[in-house]
Amino acid sequence: MASNKPKIQVFKIGGKIVNDDALLNTFLNRISEVDGAKIVIHGGGNKASEVLKQMGIEPNMVEGRRITDAKTLEIVTMVYGGLINKNIVAKLQSRDVNALGMSGADGNVIQSHKRPVKEIDYGWVGDIEKVDNTALLALCDAGFVPVLCALTHDKKGNMLNTNADTIASRVAGSLAGNCEVSLKFCFELKGVLRDFGVKDSVIPSLRSTEVDTMHASGVINDGMIPKLKNGFDALRSGVNEVSICHIDEMNINNAGTNLVL
Amino acid sequence: MASNKPKIQVFKIGGKIVNDDALLNTFLNRISEVDGAKIVIHGGGNKASEVLKQMGIEPNMVEGRRITDAKTLEIVTMVYGGLINKNIVAKLQSRDVNALGMSGADGNVIQSHKRPVKEIDYGWVGDIEKVDNTALLALCDAGFVPVLCALTHDKKGNMLNTNADTIASRVAGSLAGNCEVSLKFCFELKGVLRDFGVKDSVIPSLRSTEVDTMHASGVINDGMIPKLKNGFDALRSGVNEVSICHIDEMNINNAGTNLVL
Repeated sequence: MASNKPKIQVFKIGGKIVNDDALLNTFLNRISEVDGAKIVIHGGGNKASEVLKQMGIEPNMVEGRRITDAKTLEIVTMVYGGLINKNIVAKLQSRDVNALGMSGADGNVIQSHKRPVKEIDYGWVGDIEKVDNTALLALCDAGFVPVLCALTHDKKGNMLNTNADTIASRVAGSLAGNCEVSLKFCFELKGVLRDFGVKDSVIPSLRSTEVDTMHASGVINDGMIPKLKNGFDALRSGVNEVSICHIDEMNINNAGTNLVL
Repeated sequence: MASNKPKIQVFKIGGKIVNDDALLNTFLNRISEVDGAKIVIHGGGNKASEVLKQMGIEPNMVEGRRITDAKTLEIVTMVYGGLINKNIVAKLQSRDVNALGMSGADGNVIQSHKRPVKEIDYGWVGDIEKVDNTALLALCDAGFVPVLCALTHDKKGNMLNTNADTIASRVAGSLAGNCEVSLKFCFELKGVLRDFGVKDSVIPSLRSTEVDTMHASGVINDGMIPKLKNGFDALRSGVNEVSICHIDEMNINNAGTNLVL
């Protein structure tokens, strides 16, 4: 039964795409071919670490996560919200996509709180409290393409460094009440691979109940787990389709790995 | 005769306000008291130079203007579009002002071209070609407060460093067809001063025809000339009121120096 809700597509690109001009251009070319309402969400890549090093500061990563002290927050705000976001917007504009870059502070789209200190003090890292998609829907309705970076705010005047996969999941989930939503995590591989060394060994469909076993047996690596968790969370929030696919195949029906609850 | 057009207020703050937490907070407190549609435009201050120096690059200024080579463009995109813009937005959000930060690339609001090389090669500096205020008006109509930084784009994929006073003048001028517009250049002085050493010696009203004489006699200093030129340009474009005033008096009727054609 077809839905009467308007369709909206959410595309998330990760750090490796942002880091690589050729991959980024492929993504930008594909997104410019997507009709209808769409939102882009981008990660930060390693540019923030480069800038930190150029300023004589050693990036502090624990288990792949960035410890965000005050100076690091300044740098990620500059790099994610400024350099990367505006470059994506300018490149989309050159492709006649009327992009409009935002952080989660803009239009109060994503309010977070500073992560409580337990074993690790992550510093100025945000855990999302709530998404207000008013600005996103108003912009999409007016024909603009919101481009969200991996920053949120605490409504107390502070920016917060926030995981882009989680932002994608929560933003897509928030739209599910109003729209028929698809969420695609787009990256440099063809999907979740059965054999990491074989690029075409895509698992076409992955059930949430299969993940633990496949993780334990080594088919799914550690880095994929948070992305899958965010993808299944989006499905539970009412998002209609969630997939993990190659940037060059994001417009092909059923490409990549489709998640199923 | 009262106009039937909707009112919109455009406030421009300069670098000295952006550089100083106390002055910036005063501005943010005053702007949060302004009812109705409003747009904030901010300059860059000296943070970009600080970041350049921290990265071992000497800022290159000619007659107070920044020569913007490729690396400097990266830094100003980070600092203006990221750090300063998002900090202003986050601080406005903490005051319940639903701010939404933008550059001129976002929503294709301001399209520029790279300044042609004559005696001086300014590098990646933009001269404004056209303003499309569609996104600004849509956002204001929906209750958001656009916060514009001093960056534009060339529609070919490049960001461009662009004078904030000129952006303010051109944006205000573009709105004059649709709205009753006031433009206030807000800074740390009470207006254009008759005697620079006497802070209350405000010239309440300044005609465009008086500027050359007052400049020649030293009453108006060099730094004020581009701001005045932009102010008079805005009046010529149909902006209803243009003034130069202290951030703490921006909500007081007729405060500061009012420009008259």
